[in-house]
Formats: sequence, structure tokens, C-alpha cells
Amino acid sequence: MLKLDSHPAGRHFLQIPGPSPVPDRILRAMSYPTIDHRGPEFGALGLKVLDGIKKIFKTGQPVVIYPASGTGAWEAALCNTLSPGDTVLMYETGHFATLWKKMAESLGLKPEFLGMPGIEGWRRGVQADMIEKRLRDDTQHTIKAVCVVHNETSTGVTSDIAAVRRAVDAAAHPALLMVDTISGLASADYRHDEWGVDVTVSGSQKGLMLPPGISFNAVSEKAREASKHARLPRAFWDWADIIEMNKQGYWPYTPNTNLLYGLSEALDMILGEGLDNVFARHQRLAAACRAAVAAWGLEIQCADPSVYSPVLTGVMTPEGVDADAVRKLIYEHFDMSLGTGLGKLKGRMFRIGHLGDCNDLTLMAALTGCEMGLKLAGIELKGSGVAAAMDYLTSHVAKPALKAAA
Amino acid sequence: MLKLDSHPAGRHFLQIPGPSPVPDRILRAMSYPTIDHRGPEFGALGLKVLDGIKKIFKTGQPVVIYPASGTGAWEAALCNTLSPGDTVLMYETGHFATLWKKMAESLGLKPEFLGMPGIEGWRRGVQADMIEKRLRDDTQHTIKAVCVVHNETSTGVTSDIAAVRRAVDAAAHPALLMVDTISGLASADYRHDEWGVDVTVSGSQKGLMLPPGISFNAVSEKAREASKHARLPRAFWDWADIIEMNKQGYWPYTPNTNLLYGLSEALDMILGEGLDNVFARHQRLAAACRAAVAAWGLEIQCADPSVYSPVLTGVMTPEGVDADAVRKLIYEHFDMSLGTGLGKLKGRMFRIGHLGDCNDLTLMAALTGCEMGLKLAGIELKGSGVAAAMDYLTSHVAKPALKAAA
Amino acid sequence: MLKLDSHPAGRHFLQIPGPSPVPDRILRAMSYPTIDHRGPEFGALGLKVLDGIKKIFKTGQPVVIYPASGTGAWEAALCNTLSPGDTVLMYETGHFATLWKKMAESLGLKPEFLGMPGIEGWRRGVQADMIEKRLRDDTQHTIKAVCVVHNETSTGVTSDIAAVRRAVDAAAHPALLMVDTISGLASADYRHDEWGVDVTVSGSQKGLMLPPGISFNAVSEKAREASKHARLPRAFWDWADIIEMNKQGYWPYTPNTNLLYGLSEALDMILGEGLDNVFARHQRLAAACRAAVAAWGLEIQCADPSVYSPVLTGVMTPEGVDADAVRKLIYEHFDMSLGTGLGKLKGRMFRIGHLGDCNDLTLMAALTGCEMGLKLAGIELKGSGVAAAMDYLTSHVAKPALKAAA
Amino acid sequence: MLKLDSHPAGRHFLQIPGPSPVPDRILRAMSYPTIDHRGPEFGALGLKVLDGIKKIFKTGQPVVIYPASGTGAWEAALCNTLSPGDTVLMYETGHFATLWKKMAESLGLKPEFLGMPGIEGWRRGVQADMIEKRLRDDTQHTIKAVCVVHNETSTGVTSDIAAVRRAVDAAAHPALLMVDTISGLASADYRHDEWGVDVTVSGSQKGLMLPPGISFNAVSEKAREASKHARLPRAFWDWADIIEMNKQGYWPYTPNTNLLYGLSEALDMILGEGLDNVFARHQRLAAACRAAVAAWGLEIQCADPSVYSPVLTGVMTPEGVDADAVRKLIYEHFDMSLGTGLGKLKGRMFRIGHLGDCNDLTLMAALTGCEMGLKLAGIELKGSGVAAAMDYLTSHVAKPALKAAA
Repeated sequence: MLKLDSHPAGRHFLQIPGPSPVPDRILRAMSYPTIDHRGPEFGALGLKVLDGIKKIFKTGQPVVIYPASGTGAWEAALCNTLSPGDTVLMYETGHFATLWKKMAESLGLKPEFLGMPGIEGWRRGVQADMIEKRLRDDTQHTIKAVCVVHNETSTGVTSDIAAVRRAVDAAAHPALLMVDTISGLASADYRHDEWGVDVTVSGSQKGLMLPPGISFNAVSEKAREASKHARLPRAFWDWADIIEMNKQGYWPYTPNTNLLYGLSEALDMILGEGLDNVFARHQRLAAACRAAVAAWGLEIQCADPSVYSPVLTGVMTPEGVDADAVRKLIYEHFDMSLGTGLGKLKGRMFRIGHLGDCNDLTLMAALTGCEMGLKLAGIELKGSGVAAAMDYLTSHVAKPALKAAA
Repeated sequence: MLKLDSHPAGRHFLQIPGPSPVPDRILRAMSYPTIDHRGPEFGALGLKVLDGIKKIFKTGQPVVIYPASGTGAWEAALCNTLSPGDTVLMYETGHFATLWKKMAESLGLKPEFLGMPGIEGWRRGVQADMIEKRLRDDTQHTIKAVCVVHNETSTGVTSDIAAVRRAVDAAAHPALLMVDTISGLASADYRHDEWGVDVTVSGSQKGLMLPPGISFNAVSEKAREASKHARLPRAFWDWADIIEMNKQGYWPYTPNTNLLYGLSEALDMILGEGLDNVFARHQRLAAACRAAVAAWGLEIQCADPSVYSPVLTGVMTPEGVDADAVRKLIYEHFDMSLGTGLGKLKGRMFRIGHLGDCNDLTLMAALTGCEMGLKLAGIELKGSGVAAAMDYLTSHVAKPALKAAA
Repeated sequence: MLKLDSHPAGRHFLQIPGPSPVPDRILRAMSYPTIDHRGPEFGALGLKVLDGIKKIFKTGQPVVIYPASGTGAWEAALCNTLSPGDTVLMYETGHFATLWKKMAESLGLKPEFLGMPGIEGWRRGVQADMIEKRLRDDTQHTIKAVCVVHNETSTGVTSDIAAVRRAVDAAAHPALLMVDTISGLASADYRHDEWGVDVTVSGSQKGLMLPPGISFNAVSEKAREASKHARLPRAFWDWADIIEMNKQGYWPYTPNTNLLYGLSEALDMILGEGLDNVFARHQRLAAACRAAVAAWGLEIQCADPSVYSPVLTGVMTPEGVDADAVRKLIYEHFDMSLGTGLGKLKGRMFRIGHLGDCNDLTLMAALTGCEMGLKLAGIELKGSGVAAAMDYLTSHVAKPALKAAA
Repeated sequence: MLKLDSHPAGRHFLQIPGPSPVPDRILRAMSYPTIDHRGPEFGALGLKVLDGIKKIFKTGQPVVIYPASGTGAWEAALCNTLSPGDTVLMYETGHFATLWKKMAESLGLKPEFLGMPGIEGWRRGVQADMIEKRLRDDTQHTIKAVCVVHNETSTGVTSDIAAVRRAVDAAAHPALLMVDTISGLASADYRHDEWGVDVTVSGSQKGLMLPPGISFNAVSEKAREASKHARLPRAFWDWADIIEMNKQGYWPYTPNTNLLYGLSEALDMILGEGLDNVFARHQRLAAACRAAVAAWGLEIQCADPSVYSPVLTGVMTPEGVDADAVRKLIYEHFDMSLGTGLGKLKGRMFRIGHLGDCNDLTLMAALTGCEMGLKLAGIELKGSGVAAAMDYLTSHVAKPALKAAA
């Protein structure tokens, strides 16, 4: 039997930017016995979640649900729309943008990787003007797709997708627009249709509050048209059969039934709360978290306040301090997991997740754990981040969102 | 389906002094399907929990487990040992001592209620010398039992049971010694055999980290002897048949099977951590909590530092402040439940539970919730209790009690 | 961790007449974290279950819910209404009627035990004429209560409670009518108000499909009036405070919160199916089971077809065959639990439960287990009970009760 | 909230050949909160399951675990080892072999599809001599891989993989041997190393008793060598990074954490029972099932008794009877799911799963459901399959495999 928690008592605080804490309600829903994926009850479940997930992406177009984790959905976006040797314009916002680019290379595409030099690009969102310029220069329309990350999980920086859309339009370029919002969906506002995104990639283990294991492609008409001519080999990821069978609520191969139970519950929770309320909640907690970082006198990884992430906050440790040693100390003393620094930021920062099933006191617990851990690590702090966060929260009181008990 | 939580997201903080938060591990164990309470597997389960629970009471004598909540175990203690009209010496430590006394009256006993005048007795533990004096005066041995509460849940005051034992012995009085440690067991050190207690009463929903629904009588040889002559009517509560059938791991009537699953798991957790570690953990968190209260400039209900409870801390609100209004505000804004003031303390205090499945960050979350709530309620605080508690915890670092992951 | 099932694979078949199999849906509901039993969500839960349970008893009067198993509710019925030395007329239908009578003795009452001689009374229901005769003879109204069992779990015999009511009325006797329907409720039709019952006793682990641990007293106005003068000592079981606090959805002492979650779910399930459908389902399965027993050439314990229990069927083994040895063999080979013979029937019969969360195939599985076990035990069977039961089920097709999937 | 079961009471019987019924124990394990997939506890979990799963495949070589369902693992086997345009020799045993072949085409490979004409090949296992002959003819070694299905889920036929290995060896052909044992693993004996398989493909939702969502590639040294030169594009499915990171118990991208909890539990269960015991249990139930089909006078889809599947039995309905209408009737009346006829067998057969968490009474329940359903459908049966199965089970008594209760 599983006895995973190495700490003797109390609840683990999972404050990484995903997987986010899975609510009990969802864990209970997922423990419903697996049913026949060809039976009538499954069909009803399928139709429900396929309809509900569209509301989360703010789209009227199909959303493909894969029984695979988010990296697979990256691959699906590329191999359904592109052909070997195609040029794709990608933008370096951080570690995950870099991984997506590497994947494009592995699949035989030719990614061009735009971005700002050094670490600077990892502190700001996508610069839409750079994209526009590059597309204008591509008079031959060699570039088949523009790929950007909406919420860069490795840094805590979001990007203005509407601006990217405007850039593509301004350049009058026919490239597809593909966006990864794996960690942004259901935490930050996202509008697949309004922003004219052709393929949006997402996953289950972030704002949807599910365990990892299912992932998504929201697909525009233009993308489906492109898929008819795309020649990258594909089978498992192929949209056509899935979209066709989804009309009845089924899948061409065995779906991840118990995660779909969880998705059904998550949709009830999120749509029940209301997406705007969900976004406002994330913004409030993120602001309180940043107030704490500022009070500590530490630097926030995101250098552009207009694109602070509502999902996570990247905290840079002072020169000479190994951020992973601090994380380890906090884990051992306070039973809390924080996100590590990835790629170029290895050892230089830690990431505080404040997404999904999180509330004021969860955040405050996390911040006390950070503050105590930073002190135990011998780091001089300018002031109490905890006090600053409490000030923020008490001066920005959430309308007590009490629902009627049922 | 149950959707009880009226708050839209995040985990409720249950910081009342019981029911304490039930660990997921126990909830999962309790969801094992109910089995035949006369079958061989049940017998093995029964023997396991009957043996393990003795270690928690620190006794080699029988512990009777009732499929009933704690109030029933109070009644069991009385009706197994006493006869109509018997005089019992009880001591007023607070609301629960008062309720036990009322029960004795309801059952046709004659309780004498010792204690200090007014609210003073509710701020201190049992004064053993008062008991000794009363027993010495009872030369006719009219008093059949002395009943005291070990950890008064309504106030956050413990009592020195060893001292009460010495008092009875010093008076050379034959009265039975009965102790309620419903909220003390498995959080505060308790020694049924060493302290010469005749009947110890406890319940499931506090230090044992279980939902309410089972309760206990640990029973001395002297108490069992007394039960042979006790004439209060009894059937459901009768020890004799239960103790007899328990020898094979069974009960004379249907036991509360799924709570016994939970008890089995709780015993694995508590005995696996080690009772001394469990007690030290409670003491440390309680001290941090009191540091916070002191820093706020509020008064702790317990006026005698030598008997501060490791289970809960009673916090008095300033004159004119309705403690229940503060509790309601905290519940609505911060999704945290605190204990109300009971009986004589109605509206004058709130109680912070820090027992059972609680760790540093859970406590800190609770204290930030209190501090923010007190501020929102307009109460002037002397300083930051949260900062004081963090100071305490970082200067009294728990040995990082990491177990090997399995 | 619990690994209770001693069989390596497949699901245990719990075919005892209670605890009945707990549906997954209820186990999941019960795994909701324990909440504050004084908070607003609890109040809403309390009001819901207190209202719903009345529908199950078919009463408009209060139903008291105890955090204790069914034996406790027997005691509650007696001690709330009677005084030491009171005469109560009880009727011997089987082992449980006998235990209730013993309890009355233990509590200081004077039970008179009506019934047919030897084992005969254990094969038939209550003979209302005997009760009427005895009451007519009691011109002094010494008898304070008539106590009968509605569905005798030890034998599989129900009793006609309406007839008992008529008998009391015919005798124009003021005695209270108290009925145990611990194993009948929510499986067999029961009408607390229409039948003029004063106290109905029931429990959770039978037709309500819950684990054991809560129990009930449905209470008439007359019973509540009687309780004002009843002098048996009582505290835990006292109706008055409970009924008073229940008005707001709360209890005077800690309720069994997680079982109330389960009760809430059970009410949704049972009332959703509709009580009449529930009863018809039980009747159909019981008839199929009896068809099997008849085909085997074995005798049914209940000798009066008009009072066959819809809850369980008692099967007598041939002379010289130890029924418990057969049960043990079936348990070991086929991972199925059957009920043992109790009291006078020890070793002479086994009991097949077909109540609660049971359907055609569960019953058929149980009957194949019995048939194979009987054969392995060397018992000569007249024919195939399994075939007979299949014939019954296919010729009495349940209206396919498909609900719309949600 | 999910209320998927459209039947009012009792447990659904999931008797399709996968997803198989998930044991409660595994559902409980899967409800453990999701943890940090980069933390120390995850590493310990990862190492445990990566080690344990090798025992199930009987291999000392790496087993890659994908956070994707089984169809993905098919693709992984192909794209890690082959290059565009490669010829692969596949063998038509049924619907799933046909789907795998279609996938090979979709990925740009050139499958040759061996097999017997018409429906005959769907009634027998792989004919190794046909493979040997084809390979001998391939003197240029154009064929890069031989792909066969070990347990064809659409028909209930297994294939002799050792014989296929011998055929390849006899032809002295360097082709890789790839085997799909998605539905055979942990139900039928399978020996990756001994049989010299290069890539074995499997999934979670069959003999491993898990929900769908993870899948496997067991990989030989020769296959890994081939992967260095294979040119089908790949990223998500690429073995190299996964095998490298698996050395520490981690994955290069987010794994399906909660299904790995389930896998950990499943390994404990299966290895605890012992693989040989697991296989014998499946063989015994399968034989009883076939005894039933024979007694009904219906034909078994598998025409070669030497390769009857221990996992499922395909039952052909009489000419003119729509098997799906029978399945629907059984579903509606008896709350049981059976497998449909797939591909060439659409409407001509149904499939009874008897794999995974199944025991004697589950099987008997399923067979009574079939027998009653067949009768209600108006099909003339030769005799009682239920009686025949009971005869088989009682004359082939399983050693009562009682474990000591813990």
C-alpha cells in the first residue's frame, strides 16, 4: 500500500505550478468504477465533457481530448497540421517554449526561434512586433505556423495572444497560430475563438485541477483544413477520427475513463464558480504573492508587470544562493513542494504555484513556509512578505463567495 | 450528491478542537467495503485494534470500544460502576465537566461539583488539594467516584491526573477515579495504568484523527469489580459481554465496522510515528500558537502556564467584541472553522485547535486567518502573532522527521 | 494498511442479512472530509437527512438519529418511555426478539414473552390474536408497552404490524406499541404513522445500505408524552434535547458526521428510485431465492408463505448437516458470506440476504455459490435451485428500470 | 456529480474483455493526492513500479511506461524502430491486428498482411509456418519487423509467440519481433525475454486491473539499437530520454501520477498472488466459461482449442440472431456489459470477459446473465450452460487460496 508522505502528520502543501492540488471532490469522482467505453452511459459522459470543455477554451469548435499527457498534445498540434521540413516560427519565452521547439526539430520541422537575447526573453512575454516583422519579411510564406506559449510555466510570465494575432493579421500572413496554454487554461483568461487561435494545446493537471493524463487540442476550421494536407505521419494523434466519433460521445480507441470522470467534476466546479470569478481569484492570490516577494526584497522573475502570471510567481534567490537547496530545506522542514528553476534558471529561482484549488489560507501557508525557509537558509530578508501579503488580502477583500449549502 | 463546501475553491481549514481534520489515508481506509462482522477477517481486525488501542491508553487492561460517540462513553463509565443515588465528586473545569455532571444528575446520581468560584475555575486545571480535602472529610466513604476531565476542550486547560491520583491515595479513599480524556488522548501524554485511573473515557474524533462515532472506556480491575455490584440499569453499555467477546476479536452486537477500519489505520499512523513524537509535535505547535496570541496582545483562556493544553488554545477577545462575530467573519472570508466559546464563555472567546493531522504550515495558515480576521473585525492588535509564531517555529526547529518513502 | 480480503481476486459477495453491501456511491459520499458539526453546512445537511428519513419511515413525526448502532436504539425506545419495574409484552419471533427481551430485563423491566412453543414461533410471524387476548386480560393496564419485531433477521419472517395495531385497539388497551424494523426498513413496506406505531426502532446497515453506526427512533406524540413520566435513567438516549436541537439541523452532542453523509446519499438513492420500486425489487429477488430453495428440496425456515421476508431467506439444512460447516466451505471456496443460524437455530440453517444494493445477477451469483457449496458439502439436492431462480426471473421480468444517464 | 449507473440498484457487471473491473483497492490507491513528479517520493514510486513491471513482462530489459493509452504504445513500437517506407510483416488474427496494420499504413510503413482467408484467420492463432515461409522468401531482408498479436481481444484467440520466434530464427531473418499483448499481459503467461521479443506492447486496463491511461513498451537491446537508426519522426514516444531518466525513477515529461499509484497497488496484488496462480485462475474460469457455451450449444469463436484465450471467450450467436440486440437486452435487464463483435464479426458474436479481478461467483453471475438473456431473446439453447459451468468449477476446485488476514 502507498504511504508516500514522508512527513509524519499534516497535509502536504503542493505549491508547484502543476500538477496543482487535486480537490477531494475530483479524487472522489475519479474513484467511480471504470465503465464500458462503448456503453450508453459512457456516451452521455463523453458528450457532457466534450461540450463543457469548449466553454473553458471559449470556443465553438471541436476540442480533441487525448488520453495522454500535455507533451503529447504539443506533438498532436504539430503533426496534424504540418509536413516534414516545414518552417515554424516559435518564440522563446522560457524552458517550455524551448522544449516545444526541440520537439519540432525531433519531428523533422524547421523551427525558427525568435526571442530576446540571454535571460531577458525569459523575463518578458512574447514581443508581438518581432513576430510581425519576421512574418512581413517572409514574403514567400515559408513559415507555416507561429507557435507561442500563453503562460510560460518555467518563468511565471504570460503573453498577449491577442497581440500575436494582430501581428499575424497585420503581416497578412497565412501561417497557423498555435498556442500552448497548458498552465494557463482555467486560471488565466483564454479565448480560442476571439483570438483567432488555430490550435490551442492544454493539459489537465493545472487549472483544471485534475491529475495529469489527459490533454487537449482546440482546433479551428483552418487547422482542420490544413490537416488534410499535412504529411507528418500520424495515427494516435490524428484529429479526424476522434472528432468524427466524438459526435456520439465516444472515441476511436480506449479513452482515459476515470480522468474523464474527473473532468466532468472539474467542469461542474469551474463553470459553477464562473470563469470570471475563477480568473479574479487567481489574480488576487497572485498579487498577494507578489506583494510578499517584494517585501522580502527578492526579485520576481517576470520583469514586466503587465504580464505577471496569475498562475505562478517565479522568485529569484540572491546571488550565490542555490535555490534548490532552499527548496529542499523547505520541503524537509515544512512539507511543501515548490517548483524548481528550469533550464537557464536552474538553481537561480524557485516557483510558487497559486493555481487551481487554492485559497487565501493555502497561499498564506505557502508564504509562511517560504519566509521561514528563507530565514532558516540564512537569507537576509528586507521585511516580512507574510505581513505584506496579509495586508494585501485584507485590503482587497474577496466578496465572501459563500454558496448556499446543498 | 454532497457539495458541502460553500467556498468556491481551496481546502477548508478545520481548526476546531475536534472533530479534527481526518487524514486522507484514514478516509481511504474507511472506504473499504463493509464486511461480515462475524467472519474471520473481522476477527483479525478486531484483535488488532483492541490490542493497538491499549498502547494509546498506556494500559494492559481492557479497552471497551463502543459504536457510539463520546457522550455515550461518559454514560458507560457511570452506569457500569455506580448505583442510583450514589454520590460522585466531580470537578468543574469547564463546559464539558459541567455537561458530564448534568449527565450524572440525569442518571440519578448525586454529583458534588467542586471548583473555584466564577470563571476562575475555567482558567485552571483541577486543584487536587481540593479533592483531597473533600475526600478526607468523607469519612463514611459516601463518595463512590471522583470524576475529572483531563483536557477541558472548552477552555484549553489540562489537568494533572497523577496529582489527582495522589490526592485520592493521600486521603486513603476507596472512590473510583474516572477521567475524561476525550480530547486529550493521542495528543497529550496519558497513562491509564501508571496514574491508577479506573475508567478512562475517550472518543475517536480528536487525537485519533477519526470521524466521530466510536468511543472508549479503558477499565481497571477495580472498576470491573465495582461493575458487578453497580445497579444503574445498563444493557448497551454493559462491559461484561463486550470484554468477553472481544477476546476473539468480536462484539456482542454490530460494531461500527468502517470506523474500525479507520482506527486500524490511525493506530498504524500514530504508533508508527511514536507516541512521544506525537506529543512533542503537539507541544511545539501549541507553543507557537500561544506565541501568536501573546504577540497579538490577547489573553489566553488558560491562566496557568503549567497546564496549557497541547490540543487547543482558547483566545479571549477584548471586552465588547463578540467572539462569534469574529469567528463568522473568519469563516466567511477565509474558509476556516474555529471553536466557539461554550457555556460561561459564550461570545467571549474562540478556540484554535492544533491537534491531530496538523503541521507547521497548517498552523500558520490558521494563524494568518485569525490575524487577518481580527484585523478585518477592527480589533487593535499589539503586534503580529504570525511573525511571533514563525519566530518560534524557526527557533525551535523540529528534527526534520522524514521517513523513508515506501 | 487494510488488506482484509483473504481471497486473491474478485469481489467478496456479502450475502448476510446485514450489514448489506454498501454501494460505492455511498462509500464515496462517506469519504467527504469531516466538517464542523456546529457550522452552517452541517445544519443544512442535518435538516436534509432529518426530513428525508421521515419519508422512509412514512411518518410526519420526529425521527431521532443516534450516533450508535441498532442495539442502542432498542435501549432508547425502552428507556425513554418506561419506568423501572414496568411490564412490557414482548413476542418471541426469533433470536432478535429474544435479545430485546433480555435487554428489557437488564434494564429492570418485566417483560412477558408471548409466543408459540419450541421452534414453531420462530417459523411464523407475530400472532396478533395472542396479543389481543393478553391485553384484554390485562384489565389493570399493567402492561405499558407491546414490543414486536417487524422483520425477524434471525429467521426471515416478517410480522403484520397493522394486525398488531388492530389487536391493541380491539383490546382498547393504552399500551404503547413499539416495533423493531432494524432489518425491514427501506426493504419491506413500513408505515409508522398509518399503523399507529409509537416507537419504531431501526438501523443503518440494512435497507439503508450504510455501514453500521447510526440508528433510529421514530417517535409518536403519545410516546413523547410517555417520555415525560418515564423514570428509567437516561441521558445519551434522551429524545427531548435531540428533537429540540434537530429543529435547526444540529445535535446536542457530536453526531456521526460521515455516516450522515452516507445517509444523505442513501436517501437520494432510495427516494430517487421510489420506495414502491424498492419494495417490488426486494419482493422479486426474494421470490426467486425461494424458488431456488424449493428446487433444491430444502426447507425454508419461514413456514408461513404470507409472511416470507423480502429481506432474507432462512434455509434449513438437512438433518445431520452442520449448516455452519457448509457456510465455512462456501466462504472459503467462493468468497461469499452467508448468515449463520442464531440461538435455537444454531447449526441448523443458513441465511441468504437479498437486500439493499442487490440485483438479479448478485442474487444469481449467491445462489450459484450456495448450490455449488451444497454439492461440495455432499448434500443431495432435489434439483437445481439456480435453474429455478433463473426461470422465475425470466418469467417475472423487471420493467427494465433504466434511468437516463446523467 | 456523477451518477452514471442507469440501473437503480446493485453492482454493474463489467464483463467486457477490458477495461476489466478495477478492484476497490486500486481505486483507493488512485485516490491518493497527486504529488510533485520531481520530488523524492515520486522517485521512489517510479523506481518501484519500473522494477515491478519488468517481473510482469518477465524481462530484465527496460519497460517504457507511457502516460497514454494502448493505441499509443502501438505507435511507439513502430516509430521508435522503423523508417518511412519500411516493410513490416503483420498477421491478421482479428480486428485489433487489423487496426495495428492500418496504423502502420498511416505512419507511412508498408505492412504486408499475412493470414488465412475470410473469417478463418479470425478463429485461429498466428500460423508460424506462414511467417517462416514468408521470411525465407525475403532473401533481401526487406522486411524490418514481424508484428503479431498475442491475445486477440476481438476473438478470444491467443497465439504461440514462442513458435513465431522459432519461425523467425528458422528463417535466420534479422527482422524485429514485435508483439501486442495488450489484453494478454498478467492474465496469460507471457515471456518477453525467453521468447526473444524485441518490442512488447501492452496497456493498463486488462490483466493489470487498472483504468485505461498508461501503456507499455518492453524493449530489447536489439530494438534499442534499431531505434538509433529509425527515421520515423518521434518525440513524445521516443524511448531514449525516458529510459535514461527512468534510472532515477523520473520521466522527462509529466507522468500519469495517479495511474502509477494504481500500478503500484496492482503490482503488489499480482506479484503477491503469484503470476502462476494468476494464470491458473484465468485458465480455470475460462474453461468453466467454455463449458457453459458448449452446453448452450453455441459455437466458440476460437476454433482451435489449443489457443483458447484465458482472458475472454467469443460466443457466436445462431444464424439470424443479432448479437448486439442480445447484448442490449442483457444490459438493460441484467445490468451487465458484454463485448460487442468487432469488424468482420459485427453482430455475429459477443465476448465474455473473465479477466483480472474476477472470481467464481462473478463468472457465474455473468453466465446466468447470458443464459437468461439468451432465453429472453428467444434463442433455443441445447442445455444449461450455467449448470455445466457449476459442474466444471465444483469438479475442478481451486485450492482455497485463503491468505492470512492482516
